Formats: sequence, C-alpha cells, structure tokens
Amino acid sequence: MIVILKNNPDKAQLTSLLSWLKEKNIDVHESVGISHTILGLVGDTASLDANLISALDIVEDVKRVQEPYKHANRKFHPKPTVIKVRDTQIGGGTLTLMAGPCSVESEEQIVEIAKRVKAAGANILRGGAFKPRTSPYAFQGMGTNGIELLKIAREETGLPIVTEIMDAEQLDYFKDVDIIQVGARNMQNFNMLKKLGRQEKPVLLKRGLSATYEEWLMSAEYIMSGGNHNVILCERGIRTFETYTRNTLDLGAIPVLRRLTHLPIIIDPSHAAGKAWLVPQTAPAAVAAGADGLIIEVHNNPAYAVCDGPQSIKPEVFDKLAAHLQALHEFMKSHPAPEIN
Amino acid sequence: MIVILKNNPDKAQLTSLLSWLKEKNIDVHESVGISHTILGLVGDTASLDANLISALDIVEDVKRVQEPYKHANRKFHPKPTVIKVRDTQIGGGTLTLMAGPCSVESEEQIVEIAKRVKAAGANILRGGAFKPRTSPYAFQGMGTNGIELLKIAREETGLPIVTEIMDAEQLDYFKDVDIIQVGARNMQNFNMLKKLGRQEKPVLLKRGLSATYEEWLMSAEYIMSGGNHNVILCERGIRTFETYTRNTLDLGAIPVLRRLTHLPIIIDPSHAAGKAWLVPQTAPAAVAAGADGLIIEVHNNPAYAVCDGPQSIKPEVFDKLAAHLQALHEFMKSHPAPEIN
Amino acid sequence: MIVILKNNPDKAQLTSLLSWLKEKNIDVHESVGISHTILGLVGDTASLDANLISALDIVEDVKRVQEPYKHANRKFHPKPTVIKVRDTQIGGGTLTLMAGPCSVESEEQIVEIAKRVKAAGANILRGGAFKPRTSPYAFQGMGTNGIELLKIAREETGLPIVTEIMDAEQLDYFKDVDIIQVGARNMQNFNMLKKLGRQEKPVLLKRGLSATYEEWLMSAEYIMSGGNHNVILCERGIRTFETYTRNTLDLGAIPVLRRLTHLPIIIDPSHAAGKAWLVPQTAPAAVAAGADGLIIEVHNNPAYAVCDGPQSIKPEVFDKLAAHLQALHEFMKSHPAPEIN
Amino acid sequence: MIVILKNNPDKAQLTSLLSWLKEKNIDVHESVGISHTILGLVGDTASLDANLISALDIVEDVKRVQEPYKHANRKFHPKPTVIKVRDTQIGGGTLTLMAGPCSVESEEQIVEIAKRVKAAGANILRGGAFKPRTSPYAFQGMGTNGIELLKIAREETGLPIVTEIMDAEQLDYFKDVDIIQVGARNMQNFNMLKKLGRQEKPVLLKRGLSATYEEWLMSAEYIMSGGNHNVILCERGIRTFETYTRNTLDLGAIPVLRRLTHLPIIIDPSHAAGKAWLVPQTAPAAVAAGADGLIIEVHNNPAYAVCDGPQSIKPEVFDKLAAHLQALHEFMKSHPAPEIN
Repeated sequence: MIVILKNNPDKAQLTSLLSWLKEKNIDVHESVGISHTILGLVGDTASLDANLISALDIVEDVKRVQEPYKHANRKFHPKPTVIKVRDTQIGGGTLTLMAGPCSVESEEQIVEIAKRVKAAGANILRGGAFKPRTSPYAFQGMGTNGIELLKIAREETGLPIVTEIMDAEQLDYFKDVDIIQVGARNMQNFNMLKKLGRQEKPVLLKRGLSATYEEWLMSAEYIMSGGNHNVILCERGIRTFETYTRNTLDLGAIPVLRRLTHLPIIIDPSHAAGKAWLVPQTAPAAVAAGADGLIIEVHNNPAYAVCDGPQSIKPEVFDKLAAHLQALHEFMKSHPAPEIN
Repeated sequence: MIVILKNNPDKAQLTSLLSWLKEKNIDVHESVGISHTILGLVGDTASLDANLISALDIVEDVKRVQEPYKHANRKFHPKPTVIKVRDTQIGGGTLTLMAGPCSVESEEQIVEIAKRVKAAGANILRGGAFKPRTSPYAFQGMGTNGIELLKIAREETGLPIVTEIMDAEQLDYFKDVDIIQVGARNMQNFNMLKKLGRQEKPVLLKRGLSATYEEWLMSAEYIMSGGNHNVILCERGIRTFETYTRNTLDLGAIPVLRRLTHLPIIIDPSHAAGKAWLVPQTAPAAVAAGADGLIIEVHNNPAYAVCDGPQSIKPEVFDKLAAHLQALHEFMKSHPAPEIN
Repeated sequence: MIVILKNNPDKAQLTSLLSWLKEKNIDVHESVGISHTILGLVGDTASLDANLISALDIVEDVKRVQEPYKHANRKFHPKPTVIKVRDTQIGGGTLTLMAGPCSVESEEQIVEIAKRVKAAGANILRGGAFKPRTSPYAFQGMGTNGIELLKIAREETGLPIVTEIMDAEQLDYFKDVDIIQVGARNMQNFNMLKKLGRQEKPVLLKRGLSATYEEWLMSAEYIMSGGNHNVILCERGIRTFETYTRNTLDLGAIPVLRRLTHLPIIIDPSHAAGKAWLVPQTAPAAVAAGADGLIIEVHNNPAYAVCDGPQSIKPEVFDKLAAHLQALHEFMKSHPAPEIN
Repeated sequence: MIVILKNNPDKAQLTSLLSWLKEKNIDVHESVGISHTILGLVGDTASLDANLISALDIVEDVKRVQEPYKHANRKFHPKPTVIKVRDTQIGGGTLTLMAGPCSVESEEQIVEIAKRVKAAGANILRGGAFKPRTSPYAFQGMGTNGIELLKIAREETGLPIVTEIMDAEQLDYFKDVDIIQVGARNMQNFNMLKKLGRQEKPVLLKRGLSATYEEWLMSAEYIMSGGNHNVILCERGIRTFETYTRNTLDLGAIPVLRRLTHLPIIIDPSHAAGKAWLVPQTAPAAVAAGADGLIIEVHNNPAYAVCDGPQSIKPEVFDKLAAHLQALHEFMKSHPAPEIN
C-alpha cells in the first residue's frame, strides 16, 4: 500500500500513524519527493482499511498496490479452480449447463423438467425452494418440501441439484443439496457467508445488483477464509439506468474475473434479461467470452405459463440452445481468441 | 392493475389468464378499444406479480394503478407514524438526533461520547457492535460486549440505544436494545425482515445501495405485515457513477417518501459522504427537506483518529452542528415551504 | 397511447384535455372501468409528449403502446438496413471490421496501420482527426490535416474511412469522408443530428454514456427524419458504478436493438474497456451476440506506445483477432442460436 | 502526478517513458521502494493524460495529486467568483432566483410571467427559445422569435434573461442575451465550449446527466481557458437507477464544488424532479446546502396546463416559495453551519 502525505504533514499525527502501523507489524519505507512524501507500506496490508488512513488530515491519498483478497486472488493461485460435484465438474475447460424452473411447484413438474434438460445436455438441475421475493404477499416458495422434490428429481436423473439459501438458519435443510446458491441480495450477508465458509458444500455466489468486482471477490474471500474454497461466481446482471431489460448483463466481467481470480465463472442470462426471448441471444455471447457455464431457467408449463417466470424458456428451445452452446464451446476451444498478457 | 392485451390475443391463453385471475378472486373489467383490449383488475392486486402477467405472449403491457405496499402506504394511513422510544419520540414534527461512534471500542470511549452528544442535544445513542465489513480481515466489532457497553452508556446518560443486527440468529442479543438497525446490505434479507416483524422493537431500515423507493417500502412492508409497525426509514446514500463521495445522498427521497408513506424518515449524512467535512454541509439540507431526524457519526479520539471512521466528526463540531440543526428545524416549522397537493 | 385518469376527474380539465387532443387530430376512445376511466388515443401519438399529459392533475398515468420512433422502428421496416460504402457493405449478414489508430499522427503512421489492418481483413479504416478530449490541455487532434492523411491512406489501400465530427460547422471538411462518426458525448447534439439528416453520408451514431435504447433510437430518428436513412448504431459502453473498466460494455444491446430496429449494430470494445487486453476477450462475445461488426483501435507504435490509447491493440494481435472473429462469424451463421418470437 | 512502476520494469520502456516526459518538460523524481519504484512528476502535469501513462506495460498505476483543472480550481483562486449581470450579481453571498417558463410561447405569456416572478423576487428571467427535445417530432421552440420576446419581457421588467444555446452556429442570435445556458446534453460539446470561451457573456453550464464533478469542472475549464471566466455551474439532477423521479438531484454537489472551485453554483430543482410538487420541497434543501441560487420553472397557464412542463409550478406557489427561500437564506447567513477545514 502506498500512502501519499500532504506537504509539511503535522509531526504528531505522522508519529501516531507510524506507531499505529508498527503495532500492526507493517514496515514503512519513506521516500521524500520534492512536493510530496510517500510511504510505502510492506506487510499484511490486506488487513488495513484504506479509508481509515485516507481520512487522516495529513494524508493526501492512499493507493492499494495489492488487491485486498488473497485466497481468491489469481496472483497467488494461478491454477484455475475445478469443482467436482458428483459425476460432473465446474471449471477447467468444460461448459457447465445448470437448468431448471424458477420455482419447484410439484414432483411431476420438477421431475419432468429434470428429464428434459438432462436429455438436452444439462449437467446440473436448478430449482427454487426458498424464493426471495420483493413482496411479502408473493409466493415464497415450497421451502423444505421443494428441496425434497429436487432430491427426487436427482434420483430420477442423476443430476446434482443447486438451490438458493436465504438465511444461515436454513443451513440444516441443505445437507442433501449439492451446491448452495447465495442470491444477489445476500451477497454481503456476511454472517451467512462466514457460516458457508465453515462447511464443505460448493457455493454459487451471485453478484450483488450494484457490487463491484472487488466487493464480489471480497465476499468470496469471506467464504474461502473460513476454509471452503469451492466458490463459483455467478454474474446475473447489474443495476443501471436502462429499464428495457430488468438488469444489464455485464459479460465483460468474465475476462476481468478470469484475470483477477482462479474461481469458475457462471453466467445467468435469464434474470439479467427478464425476457425469455433474450436468453438464447445473450447465452452464446457468454460462452464466446469464456464463461465456465450458464444457469438458465426452463419451464414446461405452457398452459399455466402465467405461473412461470417471464424469463423462462421452453424445453424445446433449451434443447436447441444447449446443443448450440456446446458446439460453440467446442469451436472456441479449437479457435481460441488471442490473449494479451 | 391494468392489463393491456395485444391485438387479437390467443383465445386459449386469454381464457387461462382469466380463470387464473378468477382463482385469485380478482374481478376483471374488459374494455375493448379500437387497437387494444384492456383488462381492469379489481381486488387484492397487491398479491399479483406484474412481471408474471406481462410475460404472457398475449399481454402488451401491465400497469399498476395501486402501489404494491399496503401497511406502509400513506393513502391508507394518512396520519404520520410517531414512534415512542423511552422518553423520546421519532416523527410527528420533532427532530431526532442519533449520534455516536462508528464502532464501540471501550466503556470509556462510548460513555464519554454518549455524555458529549447528549450534552449537545442528541436524543439517541448510536454505536456499532456487530460491524458489516467488506473484508473478512477487517475488525468485525466487539459483538455482544459492544452491546453491554452501550447499555452502560445508556444507564449513564438515559439515551436510548440503536445498533445494527447482521443476522436473524443475533436477535436474542438485542432484547435490551431500544432500536434495531438493519444495514443497507441487509435491506432485502427477507427472512430477517420477517423475524423483525414478529417482535416489537422499532426497526431502523436503511436503504439498500441500489434500492428503489418501492423496493425499500416493500422491505418495510415485510416487517409491518408481520405485525410490527414501528419502522423508521433511513436514507444513507445510493450508489451512482460519481466516485468523489463514497455514495450520493438522495435528499429528494425525503419529500417523495413523505408522500408515499407515513413512516418517519431519517438521514445518515456520514456514510453517504465518506468525508467528515461534508457532514455539517449536507445535514442542514436534510432538515430543510423535512427529515424527521439524522444519524451522525461522532468520535472522540483525535490522538488515534486513524481508528475512527473517515466520516466521523469531532464532538466540538457536533456541538455546533446539533445547535444549528435544531435552530433550523424551528425556523422551518415557523416558515414552512409551500405545499402542492 | 393509453391515458389512465384518476377517479372523478375534474370536468373542466378533462374537457380542455379532450379539446387539446382534438386539435392534434387524435381520436379518443373512452372506456369507463369500475375504479378508473381509461382513454385510448389513436392517431399520430408519436408527436404527443407523454410527460406533458401525465403532468395533468386528472391523469393517474400514461402508457405508450407504440414506440415514439417511426423510421428506425423495425415494426414498420422489418427488412434489415444494408449500407453500401464503396466496395463494402454494413449489415445484411456480413461482419464489418473497422480498425485503425485512436488518432491520426502522421502519413507514415496512418498508411502503415491501414495496410496492416487491411491485410488482416479489416473493411474500413478508422482514425481520429478531431479528438473530443475531456481536458482543453490535451492533444485535440490534427484536424483537417488528419482527414487529408486518412484520404491518402484510403488511396493506398482502398479502405473507406470513418472519422468523428465534433460540430455541425465542421461538415464541409467531411465531404470526402465515407462515414461520419458522431461521438457518445454528441449523441444528443440535436442540431448537428438534424444537419447530418440533410446530407447523404452514412452516420455512425455512438450511444451516449447514459442513453437509454429509446433515447438512442430517437437520436437516430433525428437523422432519419431529415431524409438520411443510412444510420449505423454503435454501442461503446455505458457508465455504471463499476470503475475497474472505463465503461461497462452492454452486449445485451445487440439482440434488443435487433428486435426494436432494422439499423445495423456495431460494437466498440476498445473504448468500453479502456484496457487493450480486454478487447480480444469481449470482441468475440459481440459477434456471438449477433453484431454486424466491430470498430477496434489498433496502433503500430510500440516504441512510443505511450502516445497511443491505452485501449489500442498491436497489429500482430489484430491479425489473429480478425481471423478469429471472421471464423466465429461463419460458425454462428452455420450454427445459429434458436430464436423466440 | 505519481507513477507507480511494476517490479523490475523493462529498461527500454522506462527509458522511452522518461525521455517522453523530458520532452514535455516534466521533472521526474525517482524513489525506489522495497516492492515498487515510484516516479514523482513535477511540472505542468495537467497536460499529461494519466490514462496514456497507465497503459504502459511497466506501469502499475498512476495517481494524480493535482486536479487537472487550473482556472476553475479553488486552490489557485480562493476568492469566490462574483458575476455581475446588469443590476444584479450571482455569487458572493447573495441568493439568485432565476425563474420563468419552460418555453417562450407568446409575448403575453412571457411578459406576464416575467412580471409575476419579478414581483415575487426573482432576479433573472429564464425561458426556452431553442428547445432540446428527445423527439424530432416534438415542439422545438420558437427560436429567434423566442429570444425577441424575452428581450421585450426584459424591457418591461428590467430582469436580465438567460436562455439555452444548442449549437455554436447560434451564437450570433445570443448577442442580446444576458446569460447563455449550456444544456446537460451539451456539457461536453467541446467545440461550442471553446467558442463560448472566446466571448464575454456569462455561461450557465449545466451538469451532464452522468458527468462526474471533475468532468464538469473540465468543461468549465474549456470555457475559462479561452478567456471567459464568467462560468456558473448548474446541478440539475443526475441519471441513476431510480425511476420515480426523472433524475436524482445531487445536493451534495454544492459543498463538494464549494471546496473544489470558486465558481457560483446554481440548483435546478424543476428538471431533476420532473414533478412540480417536489420543487418547493427540494429547493429549500439547496439553499440550506449553500447554493448561490436556483433556477425554477414557472408557468401561468392553468387552462392549458397540458402545454406546460410537468415540472412547472404556478406563480402563486412561486410567490410563497421565493419568500421562503430568501428568508431561509437570511437565516443560514445568521446561523451558519460549522465548517471543517
């Protein structure tokens, strides 16, 4: 970390800063320039809060040279993380397709969709049991019964299951779930992240609606610093001024995260768009940008389509889309884009 | 709710929509225009998800006529909510000043600040015990010990205490706290909101970093629909493209919320700015815009200022600021701005 | 357009609204519901300002059913626009590659780059002559001399040239330019748009930093309503809260615009990223999402790289990237993603 | 400016950077730390493009220590700028009220409003002659005739007039205007800014919809570097994710700009809100935050209110509001909020 001091800094404050840094076992290298004095801090600067230091009257500015995350940092872990889930894996050059309904509604529904998406080439079954809803008056999901139905669908198809946790207290209900999903609105529910770090199941960590890449990786760091390194990052659209789509899908996040971290990156084109017809158009872009996989909403209920999410596509569309994405993934592997280091 | 259908809508889909609405006891008034057919839905439309309906192929668009929140809605509860906390009250024409340190650090520190801010005219003592920190490596607060120290400070000064809860599991620790604060990052931690709705303590609900007014009020609705109507809204800055300040304080939220809801509105100028020198400049604007109060960070530790938040002001500044704000509040009451209905 | 009236609207105001609409030759179809009266407006509603009507005390809300743009609207012009420029074309299933330096610096520089990018497969040469710079103290470009050098490069290579106009007064200097570029900061310079609509050269219209799709298409409408239908839309990144990249590239804009308009869509991955290493990673995503082409910054000046844009890639990288993009474009044509109507 | 180099930087690139800086007469002070080498650049660094330098492979990061603007910078010009316009002045402790209709519609209309707002205490008359409209099909204003009518209103009342320029070519029409307004969409129309810098009339420079404080001040710098130092900054709301109001009024901009610049700061509460009823609620907050004045839309046309802007207030409301704002301004002068340096 580099601290730029103002001209003629107050001696007392400078001394108190230096002693405070010493307490924290930070070595300080002072270099006096013509207009400014610069302190180079060496040591475990990740534990220093840049905001606190920059608040000092004597400090002009503070500049982090190292990212504040360690376990998630590719600089320290160049090898991409590969997460094994039952017979499948996430990361390491494969394309993972997670598919399923917005909400689990019945055994018939979830089993039928599970069979359809598996036949189409999906590796993992998604389905909402606990639903985070903006309105307390909207359907809140089937809860634990929903998880039981997901397990039945897994038995029928062999597909591992991923479903969302909304509260650390629910953790017991997830002991038979394969991947625990953390929703965008809980990305900075730090106590829940800590608890997820003290158990072994992989965590699918969605990006918060207005979370920066660094904040997102710091949330991953919360989980990893607890001992659980099986974190999957999921971009699901960010909040911008544009209202035509529910959110703006940030596909540039894929190459950026590829450089910053070794964790696998999954794209959710369904929630970003909020419009089913956009899903087959944006999903290929995610693969071309190098995503490790996608998570896509699929419903099978045209007669009661009104009960399905506006962003869900029909199984017959998913059949074609999955085939297209796998072919595109193969093409990109055989025809890679140039890389700049 | 008004549903605008496309031209020549598919009969089957229309029938399925109408029967689905009937199941939900919604009366439908059909009016056929030259280019469009319009359905006027009457009944408990708050429970309908506009997104789901607008996803139907036959639907051009859906327009809510009523807000989706009821308990928080001023239309149904024109009288402003006044919340009594020990000997003080929030709302109803008074100006509430909540003040205290970013974090509780020691008995000496919190008691000294409590005495200082009380002398200056603060009505409520704030202080962080459980600290939501972006980094797992940063100080996470004193936890339950911090709450014990706040209670000591309350005994010494008589000031009610407000402190932040981070997780529904912590609720037991808050039984002696006067006001439970929900942080911006937990504004949509729906399970926690439900639990806070099933207990009686007032809740200070901070606005999420990118939450719309409606989403914010829907989170209040989660608490109120559980039976707890003592909700205080707190604007603390939203996330925008501007990076000079940590967040952008949205003071326009005050008159907007005044019209939409009967709940009291508090402004947090400290976190929005992230710069102590901005606090005395923006706080008066909040009072002039009609805020019911402010929550301001005050530290008393110049020697170790580095340990205090960059947005904390010194007690001697708070002395002057509190006096200024009360005088301004009196002025605004005797010289009200004109109102347009 | 649909106007939703409040309950028991003031008769005088309603009469004045109806007569005002009549003056504008708008037919009004009134349908009285149980809780609301709804007016269906038929006629040239594009000329009506929804904001003005919604401002009336008697109006609850206004809902546009038709988009406010006509010439740019795909509903009225389903066939994709194909723009011919010398021996090449933009749109209609081809992939256009526009490439060249940030700024024209010398004859040697521009001619060398032109030859390099042409050899690599570029169809159009880009280069800045008039440079919009945030700072008045930064290099403002070579101006008319830059355009002369672009013409020399065109003679040497046969590549059509595209360069940016900053002011309607500059129009005379552009009579030998093939495509006139309008920068993001001028997207709503309406007088300039009108003038560009009264001449024949194709216009490359960049999206404003915080322009919605509709505002962008309305700016295209300004040009088209003047008679010039040769408009090319260029997404170059929007402004969001994320600061790691200069802007956030909105690739979802491609399928959205494909549905809303018949105009060709070009992506600028260089300016969005602000980082050269991101360009080869995001450009393929643009092709997979169905872009009609890309505009990419290429410099040839490693020794003085400091004078080139931080987002410029080297010719040897462009060689590989151009080949990759063309191969990917062919793949997408032979393996199309499914479409939902 | 401080340049932080990566470890073991490439010697050739470093030499080329140093010689390039030398050419620009920048002194370089090298200080070698344990993990990083830091270059302190001294000289006219405002002309250096930080992006260009940070793009070098050998550069880890670049940190500006001085703001890139000079003439607008309070550090170099501590005294607040006071702009004299006929018998009134802007800045220097007075509260300027600019008021008038959205558009000039007729002599009767503009003269009547001018008399009303003058009687209420307005110092300057505003009125749109050239109207920037999102749609080419909307009313574009009366143009030069509108300016003639403004001049008549000025003769009748003595109020100086401010109206918007949309294009450098219109400059001739503005020779009798007192203050030339630059709209938000033209804030970075750099050629027009240069021309406005080469004439003497004061310029009211509105903030772009997504312009940072620094970009805004750099646009002021464009005008000032041409010789015209009479620039008035006008905050009119920024674009955020919130859609309830047309824009989000950033009142924190007032104290921030007060610290960064010596130029007067005016607030436009009408356009930010897009709702007339919000204007009397947010205007007082602007005064309490220390604004030098406000610019407010007033219409006088209840019968045809539909032709007036949704954000315009009626004269009888402005009467009360102007009195309130002046009283509040006096109160703030006699009861100043504390300042932190």
